[in-house]
Order: sequence, then structure tokens, then C-alpha cells
Amino acid sequence: MKFVSYQHKELGERAGYLQHDHVLDLALAESWAQEQGRCHTQRPLPVTMAGILELEAEGLAQARAIAEVTRDTPAAELPFAIPLTAAHLLAPVPRPRSFRDFYAFEEHVKTARGRRGLDMVPEWYDFPVFYFSNHNAFVGPDADVERPAYTTWLDYELEIACVIGKTGRDIKPEAAHEYIAGFAVLNDWSARDVQREEVKVGLGPAKGKDFATSMGPYLLTLDELEDVRDGDRWKLEMTAKVNGQELSRGNFGRIYFSFGDLIARASDGVTLYPGDVIGSGTVGTGCILELGTEVHRWLEPGDVVELEIERLGVLRNRVK
Amino acid sequence: MKFVSYQHKELGERAGYLQHDHVLDLALAESWAQEQGRCHTQRPLPVTMAGILELEAEGLAQARAIAEVTRDTPAAELPFAIPLTAAHLLAPVPRPRSFRDFYAFEEHVKTARGRRGLDMVPEWYDFPVFYFSNHNAFVGPDADVERPAYTTWLDYELEIACVIGKTGRDIKPEAAHEYIAGFAVLNDWSARDVQREEVKVGLGPAKGKDFATSMGPYLLTLDELEDVRDGDRWKLEMTAKVNGQELSRGNFGRIYFSFGDLIARASDGVTLYPGDVIGSGTVGTGCILELGTEVHRWLEPGDVVELEIERLGVLRNRVK
Repeated sequence: MKFVSYQHKELGERAGYLQHDHVLDLALAESWAQEQGRCHTQRPLPVTMAGILELEAEGLAQARAIAEVTRDTPAAELPFAIPLTAAHLLAPVPRPRSFRDFYAFEEHVKTARGRRGLDMVPEWYDFPVFYFSNHNAFVGPDADVERPAYTTWLDYELEIACVIGKTGRDIKPEAAHEYIAGFAVLNDWSARDVQREEVKVGLGPAKGKDFATSMGPYLLTLDELEDVRDGDRWKLEMTAKVNGQELSRGNFGRIYFSFGDLIARASDGVTLYPGDVIGSGTVGTGCILELGTEVHRWLEPGDVVELEIERLGVLRNRVK
Repeated sequence: MKFVSYQHKELGERAGYLQHDHVLDLALAESWAQEQGRCHTQRPLPVTMAGILELEAEGLAQARAIAEVTRDTPAAELPFAIPLTAAHLLAPVPRPRSFRDFYAFEEHVKTARGRRGLDMVPEWYDFPVFYFSNHNAFVGPDADVERPAYTTWLDYELEIACVIGKTGRDIKPEAAHEYIAGFAVLNDWSARDVQREEVKVGLGPAKGKDFATSMGPYLLTLDELEDVRDGDRWKLEMTAKVNGQELSRGNFGRIYFSFGDLIARASDGVTLYPGDVIGSGTVGTGCILELGTEVHRWLEPGDVVELEIERLGVLRNRVK
């Protein structure tokens, strides 16, 4: 199932799902299904993704049951269907409850450090490391991302986002998949000049990252990825284009620490909640910092960045 | 005004305020004041601090008007007054919208780095640096704080928390005070063994800090601090005791970057929201890492940590 959030002209932020090339509103689809006598839910589904996620497994199951009812009906017969091209999509979870970003692709870490004349840190192999970033600055597909006035070294980062769908603590890697609501494409926009200075003080990147994170276009549930799963990895090609030119190419399957490892680390001694977002870190070659400015200059207003992950779609944003 | 949040036996989480040694529930006080014909508010105040803060200046002004009405009435005559000793206080904002922690006291940075054989970083003087930490793991005064299974080097950190009360972006240092709802005592609990390893990878502290942050006992509004204000600093003595033994002593007035500087940095190119918490960083001598384990061993289950800041009260927590 492909969950989306979108901005309805009258109703505001709403949760929906994609059926072929249409957005179907979940709450409106539920009413329709009930009118057809094909849906018997106890209480109406909340109208936003945050509300649905708060109900945990029950909310996601209810959403899935609604999508089952509409599945075989052409969009033309559904009065609430909106063509995808006419819908204003938001990030699938517009306001995550928190955002942890990891650093789980070995090639990215090696190359990015190498460019600064630094060797690989032995501790990197011992445990997955993350930092918290700004969950209040998420934007969706096709949103403009403003280049902050304080940077001239603006970069993209090609990552996978995992949205937590179930409350948990001390989660074991092998049990982690049941805590995942789904995956989406993630762009962790970065101000490299600011980041370079602030990390010297030893608290990690913060101001270099907190102005914007984009996520979308939809949240794909794991059942749709069974055929490309290899144990606790998924083989999905990842690419980034700037103004149509391919700059980055990698594969989700090459992640060093699996999402099971990342979730186990994140939840060790602390509670994860539905709506928390966990980023994979940048795939190898997945940013200009790693490629070098001889391959592409830093991003400038007007540039269009398209991140694509197989099955997860294209996340497109323009720099403003 | 001293805002609190507390757990009411039947009504759940509620916003209140301290009047001498009693907790007064804001919504119940508002009803009482209306019955007395002494309060004419348009709409009832929300019952939680998060709800009040969402109304920004208007919510805080309405709360203040309510407190004005009860001020001269002895608690014994107010049927909803709860003796402070009988109240179950939560963190004044139990679930902050975000948590940025700075590193703004020079002595702490110098000493903590010196203990690891490191010189002061020149960039530290150029701009205030912060990291995001876990806003979903806040606890209040008198709450037990569990020592995570993964650490044996548990430490406290004596800090001031500032709660944002008004939405803002690109806030100038000299205008920052109008965005502050108030100050509270903050303990940024730290797992030093984990922190030591993870910072080597360059993303800063995360897992070493994300298990608990305590804040309280109340949120003091700035008007109550005018007599100890010196420009954009407040002269307030800060101490920490472990099991009754004083270990740390410093003064808020010695902060190198003012809260105006910190808020300006945090809001540069990004929006701050009511309920965001900004930590000052540790005052000089304000943690065991800085003092050395020859002065005091790392914290163990059963230890009682009391952080006190003049006017802001005592934040007491037991390690479990």
C-alpha cells in the first residue's frame, strides 16, 4: 500500500493512498465503502497520517481494509478520486514525531572522510551511529526548498526513510520489521560550509542540517517489497539527478547495518513511537560532498533535485 | 508566574501554577474566577501546557490573568488547591515540541576537553553550537531515571532550559526575550562511556544522551527575574548535589553566549515553535565528567541528584 498525505482544498491536511495514478482520501473512501455496505469499521479512521499512526497496528489494518474495498473499482467511478497530477502531496508523514538520521552506508563514510584526508574510524564498524535532526522542518514532494542565507555549499543526500508504526523499546533486530510502517525516499538537505565548521566543536551536524528535510512521494508498506527482499536487506536501485543529469547511483541492498540493526540501536533503553522517522544515512555516491565539486558545483536556486528509489518513486524538489 | 504541569488523579495531565506552596489548576481556577464574576475570558484556556503554548502570547496572557484573580485568596479558600507536597508534578512542558541543547559555558567546554587532552576549539568562540536531542524522553521532578543497561558511566549535567512561547524565524538576539515563555532547571543525563565512543564517528552525542532529560520543577516567567537581570544575562547561582553532597557550583551570569545569541542561532533560516526547548549546555563544574571521578564516582542506582538554580527551584531525581 502506498500511503500519502495531501492538502485538500477545503479539508486541509488529509491521509490518503495511491491507487494507480489517483489519490484516494482514506476517510472519504471509508464513507463510500460503508455506503456500499462493504466496510464495517467500529470507529471512523482519523483523517491524518499522524492520527492513523497513533492507532498503531489497528489504524494501519483499518486503512488497508479500506484500500481492499476500492481496489477493483476504477477511479472514474469513485467521486472522491483526485488525479495524482492534480493533487498537492505533502510528506507522507508531514510532521514526524522525531527524526534520527544514521550513517549506515560504508562507502559514503569512507569517501566523505577520505575527501577531508581522514581515515575510516574503527568505531564505525562496532555500532550504528546516528544524530537527531529537525523533525519540525519536513517538506514533501515538489515543495520548494529555500537555500538558507547562511550557506553557499548546499548539498542533497540520497537516503531511505523508515517510518515507525508501533511503539517499542529494546527492539531486537530480528523483530524490527513489525515496527516499520513503511519506507520512503528521503533527502537530508545539507549546508556543507556550516557543517564543516560546526562539527569541529564535537557536537555533530545540527545547523548544517536543520533547515529542511524532504520525504516522499509516498510511504510504501513492506508487503510490497517481499520479492526484492534478501533476508534483512532490500535490493532497490537508488539514483539522484540534478537538472536531469544523473550524479548518484547506489543500491539499498549495500547498506552495512540493516534497518533491524538501526532500530535496535535507536530503541536501546528508550521508547520509539509511531511517526518517528529513521533515516539510513547517505548511500555511496549519494551527495556532492562525496562526488566532489569537480563533478558538480554546489546547488543553487533554480536547481531541480530528483531522488529516485526503485518502488519508492521519485522525490523531486526545486531549490529556491 | 511559576507554571507547572501535574498529573491529576482523575483528569490526567493538567496545566497549573504555583501559589506559595500550593498547585492551582489553571482551568479549575478559571472556572472559579468566572463564578466569582472576576474573569471574563472569551474561550476556556486549554487544560495542558502544550495547549496553552499553542495559543502563544494570548494563551500565556490568559493564564496570567487567571493567576491575578487568585493571588490574594488563601489556598484554604480555593477548593481546587493541592498542597505542593501532595502534587505529582511532571516536567512543566511534559512533551516538548523539540529539544536543542547548546554548549554555551566556556569553562565547561575547556575543562571537559582538557580532561581528554584536547585544546579549546577556536571555532567554539565564533558561533554557539548545539545538537538536537530526544524531546520524547523528558521526565519531571522526583521522577526516577533508569540507568540504561548499556552504561556504567552515568552522569548528570546542570543546565538552564528555556521554553519557547512564540513562533519565530530569523529572530534577532535583542528581540529574543519576547519569544521566551520561561526558564526551568534542566538535567541532561549522559552516558559518558557511550558518548566517548560515538563522538569519534563525528555525528556528535546521541545514544549517550537520548534515554532521559529531566526538567522542572516549574517554568518561571522572565518578569520574575527582572531584579537579577544584567543586560541579556541573569545572575543566578547554580548548584548540584549528589546524595546531599555539593559537587557543582556556577552562575548563569557567566554564560558566554546569551540566550539571545542561542535563539538567534537556532532560528536562523528555520522556524521555532511554542514548546520547543533550548538548553544552555552545562555550567562550569556542572557534571562528573568535568570534576573527574577522583571527586565523585559515576552515578549508580539509588543515587539522588539535586540540581538547584536560584529562583528556579530544585530539580530532584533518583537513579533507578
